[in-house]
Amino acid sequence: MAILEDMTDLARRAKAASRQVARLTSVDRNRVLLSMADALQKATVELQVANALDREVGRAMGLSAAMLDRLTLDSARIIAMAQGVRDVATLPDPVNRVLDERIRPNGLRLRKIAVPIGVVVIIYESRPNVTADAASLCLKTGNATILRGGKEALNSNRLIASIMVSAARAVMANFPEDGILVVPTADREAIPALLSLTQYVDLCMPRGGEGLIRAVTACSKVPVIKHYKGVCHVYVQGDADLRMAEEIVFNAKCQRPSTCNAAETLLVDQTIADRFLPQIASRLATKDVSFHADIEAIPLLRSGLGDRGFQVQEANSEDWSTEYNDYVINVRIVKGLEEAIQHITDYGSGHSDAIITADETVAERFLSEVDSAAVYWNASTRFTDGGEFGMGAEIGISTDKIGARGPMGLEELCTYKWQGFGTGQIRS
Amino acid sequence: MAILEDMTDLARRAKAASRQVARLTSVDRNRVLLSMADALQKATVELQVANALDREVGRAMGLSAAMLDRLTLDSARIIAMAQGVRDVATLPDPVNRVLDERIRPNGLRLRKIAVPIGVVVIIYESRPNVTADAASLCLKTGNATILRGGKEALNSNRLIASIMVSAARAVMANFPEDGILVVPTADREAIPALLSLTQYVDLCMPRGGEGLIRAVTACSKVPVIKHYKGVCHVYVQGDADLRMAEEIVFNAKCQRPSTCNAAETLLVDQTIADRFLPQIASRLATKDVSFHADIEAIPLLRSGLGDRGFQVQEANSEDWSTEYNDYVINVRIVKGLEEAIQHITDYGSGHSDAIITADETVAERFLSEVDSAAVYWNASTRFTDGGEFGMGAEIGISTDKIGARGPMGLEELCTYKWQGFGTGQIRS
Repeated sequence: MAILEDMTDLARRAKAASRQVARLTSVDRNRVLLSMADALQKATVELQVANALDREVGRAMGLSAAMLDRLTLDSARIIAMAQGVRDVATLPDPVNRVLDERIRPNGLRLRKIAVPIGVVVIIYESRPNVTADAASLCLKTGNATILRGGKEALNSNRLIASIMVSAARAVMANFPEDGILVVPTADREAIPALLSLTQYVDLCMPRGGEGLIRAVTACSKVPVIKHYKGVCHVYVQGDADLRMAEEIVFNAKCQRPSTCNAAETLLVDQTIADRFLPQIASRLATKDVSFHADIEAIPLLRSGLGDRGFQVQEANSEDWSTEYNDYVINVRIVKGLEEAIQHITDYGSGHSDAIITADETVAERFLSEVDSAAVYWNASTRFTDGGEFGMGAEIGISTDKIGARGPMGLEELCTYKWQGFGTGQIRS
Repeated sequence: MAILEDMTDLARRAKAASRQVARLTSVDRNRVLLSMADALQKATVELQVANALDREVGRAMGLSAAMLDRLTLDSARIIAMAQGVRDVATLPDPVNRVLDERIRPNGLRLRKIAVPIGVVVIIYESRPNVTADAASLCLKTGNATILRGGKEALNSNRLIASIMVSAARAVMANFPEDGILVVPTADREAIPALLSLTQYVDLCMPRGGEGLIRAVTACSKVPVIKHYKGVCHVYVQGDADLRMAEEIVFNAKCQRPSTCNAAETLLVDQTIADRFLPQIASRLATKDVSFHADIEAIPLLRSGLGDRGFQVQEANSEDWSTEYNDYVINVRIVKGLEEAIQHITDYGSGHSDAIITADETVAERFLSEVDSAAVYWNASTRFTDGGEFGMGAEIGISTDKIGARGPMGLEELCTYKWQGFGTGQIRS
């Protein structure tokens, strides 16, 4: 009960602050962001002290070297974090955009405009720079934020938020103290408590591994926008330019395998499998990629691998829906478009899928029938990203269908309202 | 467990059907709708037989005369229901609208287009004509529907859905049998079971009383778009044209008090209360309206009511957040804009609120700071309606902020996806 009371107090304060943040002008929000950026950079020493405490905790918790590295705020990262906040200040303001406007026959003018959502909860894992990143994107869009990072980053996160709020108040005395809040406890029960408060919290965006996101979604009463994982496909259709297909598959798998928009499965039409599979196998072998393949594909892949044929194993049914985040790829031969779409429907995660083909009709069917957030014709799945989409910033990627879908930038941190301008209209 | 298995089977079939429905062209969907409309009208006798069975059940359940009337399908209502389906066919197609388009520096063309959501569950109360209405709006937007009406309308609802699907298949053999499904049981456990199936169900829209909607929302794992109630306000500011204010308040309260966009509370600036309250009281008295008022307002209202002063009672704290759906209105005197906004923030339902004023600056602040789906300046709250907004049709009204907000028409029954058109682009 104590934790529920604490979270209720926190969320109520955030809600009150959200109304004040929403009232700030665009100029004010940008001025505040620049002040925050400068303050973060000036506080390098304090941030490193707080971060050292966190790393001590992390080491005591037995975090891996990779996790400890993610947790670390060195001065280069602090500069980059501050620069990120500055970059947000320079982006166009998405708030108050007119999304629709109509004058009704009775003269009533209706305007649909983008407005802040209110209170946004962001839940994430280790990296403390996400704190500044998420808070600045929410502030830019007129939202209050409640941040919940990893427990091993609590000191860093609290200090970052407190520096940001102080810097805001230094240039704008009425900036609300509760405009950026960090959940002040590592208690696991804080999350379900916070996410039960639909009267105060408008949206939750969890970022991290599938386990975290499933746990958040399972307990939340508040709308959650998220993606669980990215099981992305590249389908090389019978009419594909095989040089182009090779480049795209290689890029989609190998350019950065740890990302959610990297390809996990290659689907190849049977008519070209005997040509394309040896070719792509030998290309992927340059990055030491392993293959989980169906029975028919195995000898074709091995013929391209020569004495590295041991890199190929038979795929099991779980493989098709696995996000490897690694130099591993599933390979399956399909009879054509129908079977490719069916495979993606059965095993995909609704994230990003691509077709490589010279046949426009086939491509249009793929783009229309594959029910994913982003679908590509003759391009890499790796483009599903706020920056690559020209959004300027990204708070996450959604595979949901209600609210934002695909990369989420500033516009996706807004909702809308309808404003009616009348001259005394009444309904008859 | 049996009910979960049954609902899983139902939802899985709906999901498969949704892919087929989504593939239909706009021309096909409209052709199917017209065939459905004709078939419903031709089946007047069968529909009345099924409906008579339902009314017998309803009487046995002890439904009120008003509820039995809502349940009744007479031939005029069947004609109107068929005409409603025809009207949907004539509306513009919201699917495949291009919502955004951009060409990136690397030549990749990105297009954001409206697409069907997938499987939409509609939960509603007595009136069986909602079945045809909801199913036709979902079909128009390329969605499959699972319908759950009141248990007293089960025979009517099943027959309506079955007539619609048969009529579709008569003109289009490959129309999926499961494109429109009615939950075939009155078992209350069907709803939580169905709404646990996030892998098959994309959205739930409950329509009805607050109790129903809260129960649905509490149990659902699927996104729910809804409004609980409409506690709408009209704020008559000190610079209002009081003739206009009188007309708007009268309209907002009395034109149809049973609707969610009718006003429940009148807020009046203290500077004009002694003039406006007697005036509005005497006007509202023509409809025998009762008043729940704050202490200061009571004598002013009574002075306008003469010997009907007994119609005024002191408001209690619950009244301010009550949706009366009746000829009853709360009245409160406020010190100005700030207090009016604070009252709406504290007691409103985020539905529809209006300000009456000649002062543009004040109006702009109200329109900006009142955090409701629809906000009006010098117009009645009664305009929050798909038809009045020019949407052509309405599936409901939302006070949510994620997904649709305000009246929901065909566009709000779509989600979007991103399509990328490349010429071999890879990410560097």
